[in-house]
Amino acid sequence: MKFIAEINVMPLKEILDPQGKAVTGSMKNLDLSEISNVRIGKHITLEVDANSAEAASEKVDIACKKLLANMIMEKYEFELKAV
Amino acid sequence: MKFIAEINVMPLKEILDPQGKAVTGSMKNLDLSEISNVRIGKHITLEVDANSAEAASEKVDIACKKLLANMIMEKYEFELKAV
Repeated sequence: MKFIAEINVMPLKEILDPQGKAVTGSMKNLDLSEISNVRIGKHITLEVDANSAEAASEKVDIACKKLLANMIMEKYEFELKAV
Repeated sequence: MKFIAEINVMPLKEILDPQGKAVTGSMKNLDLSEISNVRIGKHITLEVDANSAEAASEKVDIACKKLLANMIMEKYEFELKAV
């Protein structure tokens, strides 16, 4: 079976996000001062071949821990959909 | 009222995603050859002050079009939650 995973990798909230801070600042120049607290992370989609949703979920978990997220500075969450 | 927007900005599917291709290749080295077709974009969270969900949605739309997404190469989608 084929699954599609939608993964979000975000900087931990204890950690300063300079890119997000810069974008928050730019919002004011665009007359969007109502927008605050911008935080920027990664959104990753991928396909997994697996026999079950559990097996697919395990694969995605390994991929996140080993490659996609830096567990010291980031957290991840994901959703799986069967295709 | 305060709203939180969760925005995904992804490269258009017609456009090559070199970062995603590189990560797809690395999956094989990690014994995760079941994973394919990795695409990498941005996940952005932000807070909006607005009187209604419609007003908030309009602000986020402007922010995406003017600053967060490059409409030539990327598409965006977002969800709003009242806090």
